[in-house]
Amino acid sequence: MKAKPSFLIFENRMSLSPFEHSFLGGLFADEETSALFSAEADVAAMLQFEVALAKAQAACDVISNDDAVRIADALNTIVIDYPSLREGVAKDGVVVPDFVRQLRSVVGGQAATRVHFGATSQDVIDTSLMLRLKAAAEIIMARLSSCVSGLQNIASRDGSKPLMGYTRMQAAISMTVADRVTSWQQPLVGHHEKLAVMMKRGFALQFGGAVGTLDKFGDKGADIRAELARRLGLVDTAQWHSQRDSIVDFGHCIALITGSLGKFGQDIALLAEMGNEIRLAGGGGSSAMPHKQNPVVAETLVTIARFNAVQMSALHQSMVHEQERSGAAWMLEWLVLPQMVVATGSALLLAERLIEQIEHLGS
Amino acid sequence: MKAKPSFLIFENRMSLSPFEHSFLGGLFADEETSALFSAEADVAAMLQFEVALAKAQAACDVISNDDAVRIADALNTIVIDYPSLREGVAKDGVVVPDFVRQLRSVVGGQAATRVHFGATSQDVIDTSLMLRLKAAAEIIMARLSSCVSGLQNIASRDGSKPLMGYTRMQAAISMTVADRVTSWQQPLVGHHEKLAVMMKRGFALQFGGAVGTLDKFGDKGADIRAELARRLGLVDTAQWHSQRDSIVDFGHCIALITGSLGKFGQDIALLAEMGNEIRLAGGGGSSAMPHKQNPVVAETLVTIARFNAVQMSALHQSMVHEQERSGAAWMLEWLVLPQMVVATGSALLLAERLIEQIEHLGS
Amino acid sequence: MKAKPSFLIFENRMSLSPFEHSFLGGLFADEETSALFSAEADVAAMLQFEVALAKAQAACDVISNDDAVRIADALNTIVIDYPSLREGVAKDGVVVPDFVRQLRSVVGGQAATRVHFGATSQDVIDTSLMLRLKAAAEIIMARLSSCVSGLQNIASRDGSKPLMGYTRMQAAISMTVADRVTSWQQPLVGHHEKLAVMMKRGFALQFGGAVGTLDKFGDKGADIRAELARRLGLVDTAQWHSQRDSIVDFGHCIALITGSLGKFGQDIALLAEMGNEIRLAGGGGSSAMPHKQNPVVAETLVTIARFNAVQMSALHQSMVHEQERSGAAWMLEWLVLPQMVVATGSALLLAERLIEQIEHLGS
Amino acid sequence: MKAKPSFLIFENRMSLSPFEHSFLGGLFADEETSALFSAEADVAAMLQFEVALAKAQAACDVISNDDAVRIADALNTIVIDYPSLREGVAKDGVVVPDFVRQLRSVVGGQAATRVHFGATSQDVIDTSLMLRLKAAAEIIMARLSSCVSGLQNIASRDGSKPLMGYTRMQAAISMTVADRVTSWQQPLVGHHEKLAVMMKRGFALQFGGAVGTLDKFGDKGADIRAELARRLGLVDTAQWHSQRDSIVDFGHCIALITGSLGKFGQDIALLAEMGNEIRLAGGGGSSAMPHKQNPVVAETLVTIARFNAVQMSALHQSMVHEQERSGAAWMLEWLVLPQMVVATGSALLLAERLIEQIEHLGS
Repeated sequence: MKAKPSFLIFENRMSLSPFEHSFLGGLFADEETSALFSAEADVAAMLQFEVALAKAQAACDVISNDDAVRIADALNTIVIDYPSLREGVAKDGVVVPDFVRQLRSVVGGQAATRVHFGATSQDVIDTSLMLRLKAAAEIIMARLSSCVSGLQNIASRDGSKPLMGYTRMQAAISMTVADRVTSWQQPLVGHHEKLAVMMKRGFALQFGGAVGTLDKFGDKGADIRAELARRLGLVDTAQWHSQRDSIVDFGHCIALITGSLGKFGQDIALLAEMGNEIRLAGGGGSSAMPHKQNPVVAETLVTIARFNAVQMSALHQSMVHEQERSGAAWMLEWLVLPQMVVATGSALLLAERLIEQIEHLGS
Repeated sequence: MKAKPSFLIFENRMSLSPFEHSFLGGLFADEETSALFSAEADVAAMLQFEVALAKAQAACDVISNDDAVRIADALNTIVIDYPSLREGVAKDGVVVPDFVRQLRSVVGGQAATRVHFGATSQDVIDTSLMLRLKAAAEIIMARLSSCVSGLQNIASRDGSKPLMGYTRMQAAISMTVADRVTSWQQPLVGHHEKLAVMMKRGFALQFGGAVGTLDKFGDKGADIRAELARRLGLVDTAQWHSQRDSIVDFGHCIALITGSLGKFGQDIALLAEMGNEIRLAGGGGSSAMPHKQNPVVAETLVTIARFNAVQMSALHQSMVHEQERSGAAWMLEWLVLPQMVVATGSALLLAERLIEQIEHLGS
Repeated sequence: MKAKPSFLIFENRMSLSPFEHSFLGGLFADEETSALFSAEADVAAMLQFEVALAKAQAACDVISNDDAVRIADALNTIVIDYPSLREGVAKDGVVVPDFVRQLRSVVGGQAATRVHFGATSQDVIDTSLMLRLKAAAEIIMARLSSCVSGLQNIASRDGSKPLMGYTRMQAAISMTVADRVTSWQQPLVGHHEKLAVMMKRGFALQFGGAVGTLDKFGDKGADIRAELARRLGLVDTAQWHSQRDSIVDFGHCIALITGSLGKFGQDIALLAEMGNEIRLAGGGGSSAMPHKQNPVVAETLVTIARFNAVQMSALHQSMVHEQERSGAAWMLEWLVLPQMVVATGSALLLAERLIEQIEHLGS
Repeated sequence: MKAKPSFLIFENRMSLSPFEHSFLGGLFADEETSALFSAEADVAAMLQFEVALAKAQAACDVISNDDAVRIADALNTIVIDYPSLREGVAKDGVVVPDFVRQLRSVVGGQAATRVHFGATSQDVIDTSLMLRLKAAAEIIMARLSSCVSGLQNIASRDGSKPLMGYTRMQAAISMTVADRVTSWQQPLVGHHEKLAVMMKRGFALQFGGAVGTLDKFGDKGADIRAELARRLGLVDTAQWHSQRDSIVDFGHCIALITGSLGKFGQDIALLAEMGNEIRLAGGGGSSAMPHKQNPVVAETLVTIARFNAVQMSALHQSMVHEQERSGAAWMLEWLVLPQMVVATGSALLLAERLIEQIEHLGS
């Protein structure tokens, strides 16, 4: 029995989501995508926005170069006071007012007034999200490719073996392992393509100021926005704060992935239950029946598919985003999107693992 | 008080869905999209499939030309016995076995055995659906264009007038009517584009036979499928019966439309409640307060947005489509997709009407 | 091939919901619960409300006895003009203004002004709903009892036979058929009890007038309401128009029923797929594989469980019912509740049928 | 700028759920209900189960008193190795096999074989959940009472003031503040009553062994279960592992609470937007418009209502719980229920705060 290391006090305290639960995380966690939704990652992206904004405004002669340099220097080394951010959120409902206050305090002087100039909370928060969704898309695409390859390996090894085809929960006629593997692989290829199109089109900068009109910049608004987008590696588009379809699109795309993996998991679980056409390594142990080898990874794929299917409804609800900005609709995204992304990341890791566990398929 | 015409006996009998309810339909109905999901439209599309299949098989020398002609002639004039179809569904859970029995009976002779040759229920039903979703997409695109134009007219008329911008349920700063109208119009343009891409890529034929392997056709399967797709104006792809992502994609696309229209409706309802920046014609009357003009059309847009948002969850759930074909997952689509399409059609009609009702916007 | 009878023109026209589809209804329809949601049933209940209201107001000396008698006589023989109702809904968003206009026109004279006196649209519509939900609850309870008995028969016949217990998609240890049957039966007993409690507590009258304050009646409001409730067999409570929890409760209760039946269906489908512990009569035929006996009824139970699970989210969304009355939230109920009730009625009929089909269970 | 305290490394790492996010938690966190879902709280409840089980088995002469004492002593001081639990979950999909291994290792000797004797994973995990849901219900009930009192105070202070009644987003007729407050308060009273009934009926022990038949205990199973329930303060019922309706019931009950609070929040946000009938303290600041006072707490109530409404669909989906135990359906509960409970706890805290913020209501 090991002594309980002190850090676990904190690790264990946070356990609402199985995706970061101190022990359920053993099954559900995906550190790589989770890291994109840590408070630090969010803050880092928000700082990136504010630095790029200052530089873009300097490039457009809206603020001085000196101010931009001073802002960039200060923000590159800032140590953020997280408890203060938390108090700010308690008061304001968003993190940006206190965040900007901290930034201005560390920049100091005249330049302080140039921090976050002409921007609003939603610009910072939504742009931070887009930067991180873009990174998530890259991770997801790589894992999709890995799953496609892994399935290809199974097809190469077992593809010509006979496998009973089942329709409507009844044995139908015999087909081949390749036929079944194709039904798992093909949709993943399609989802990869969908993400590739999304990547090519790019993730959109959000920049609109108070009510989306860039009212502080006169006729320079469009130029600043273009320069800001360029610096952040995002697409320059008109502000979209009350138009959430690209967020819903992203969620839809990853829910398709987990849906297809759920079909794969369900098929494996059924093969495992019937038992005669699959050999599966590494099933889960039971506390009551040591002889069992539960297909827990396959089951988890089904769970995650149904979880994301449920959450999609929240993203679509959040499209009823009243007026220039709806706090209620916006926050609903916060409650579901990060977990959807990590659920997708986890499902892909689990699918890679399940593919490895399939030692034999077919009769 | 008019006499009750006899046909109303039947019209009234069916009232589960407000979209075809005998009096709620006054608000919710959309005859044009509803017609695509009538039993007759389904049967007509299924007949189209069977005729094209026979012709494609004749073209590929799988059946004789004479048989194909005889099948086509018989099916072009067949009168379907709907009560018998209903009994068939009661027994088989799908309509196709009885449908094919009726077809074979009317074709008669040797050719009867060539009807539906090598095909399975799902081929007929899913292909019929794709033919009709394609028609629905055309209707939806036309209405989206009409809404975009209508909003453009408002922008032309009132665009330069001041309008208070509201963020998080608070007056923020003044902007213009054009700014707000853009936030309604822009997403509709995007959705139209998404549908245009979908139309260009095409709707996919489903054709796989018993377990998706076109097992009856030896090496001629691919040729028949290509010819069949060509004749139906659909895309030739490998069978996709257990891969439902294109169905979910379609649902997602139309739910985005109703979501954006829900935002429009919510904005109009809020403008109407505050009352000083909009003049709206034709509001709904109240049975208790004759002075009121309820923005019922705007409210209905919100309702439909939330309805479709809920249904999306069902479509995503139906992706867990086990083995070669899942009855349970497949039928879940039947319970939600037709109403989602008609809900979208209705929302677009209502939006057109609401746009007309906006007599004045801005201060 | 029979001639197509003329009534089918209308029967087929309405096909959005498989629960009343001209041929899918063979599997999904439940005429008894559907009848409660026909336009005629709604109108009949609304007339019942208006007659009882007049009588209650006469009993409380708010209107004269003569007026009440005249109203009752006229409404008992009124022939409603449905097309006019539909036009009214198109204009007003609710049926009541035109409905009341028709009523007043047939009553005529001085008494006409006493029709619907002090009531509002929501009073009529929600009370009509409660009258019909009460009737639905009775039907559902009777069918639950029937399912419980049917399962008891299976337990009596096969209960002592061995059945393999499965946990997490793996054979675990042997148990008895009775153990499994109990897991199907027990929840149904619980749901019946829940409905019985609901019936005993009673279904609530909705009566509040324009904004819920019975403003037209001075200090007689409570007396009229009590008398009206008594005459309608409903519970006398304060108006609840913006408080929708009893509607959501009802939906929850029936979704529990379909959820438990979905578990039953899934179990039967798995038994049927594995094939060695069940003998099932009357499976569905396949158009491609005549040898198959698909467990379509079992699958449909899973479908309906997932359908109602999805719809519950809409009912909970509709609780955000702003101010005194929300058109948007209210109409969302209209779009899902009737179909949820009929889905439940259908699932119970299907479960009864499936229970009959189980010829043998266990090894 | 404070130095970043080292513990924040861990606090910040876990940020998927806004309910325990290091800074969003300022708005969304509820420490009291969150604590019930910490890994430690789960482990503590699981230990409580295992100790009570040993004692109950000793009381029923299934294991010796000495063994029970030895087990109780060892478990009361055990230091759990969380990283090992995590590895166990990674392998087994559930925590119990490794948990029991740790317990047996610390108990040692002959008694070690008596730890968890005759129980299975689901017994421990579901019973731990019930113990903690019971504690959650108590917290929630207390907060409901507090909200009801707070609203009563508003009614006492402002109840007789006029307030415009709004129906369908239109001013209707004037009523009083008391009328509106009643529509917020009444449902909360009802939800409190519903929870009180649930508390009185009690939360159910889960105890069934491998497949629910308590197969290890011969005719002593029922006695052990009764004794175990008594010791844990839970209700003695037959095992219910595949019958999840009580879990869904609990979720439904708390979703009703957040739904009613969402209606309250929406009403306050609308009052705040219109501005002339409410004075609200402590609104949220804006980073772009210092003059604004956003009703962020009211908005968050709407957000949480819609979040829980969405999650309800997952709980209902999880009722399709195949065979003796479904991993897939069971884990779906894990992904949503803890956050639903904390969402409810948070909503109640926010409602208490919002009630305090209402300085004046009415004209």
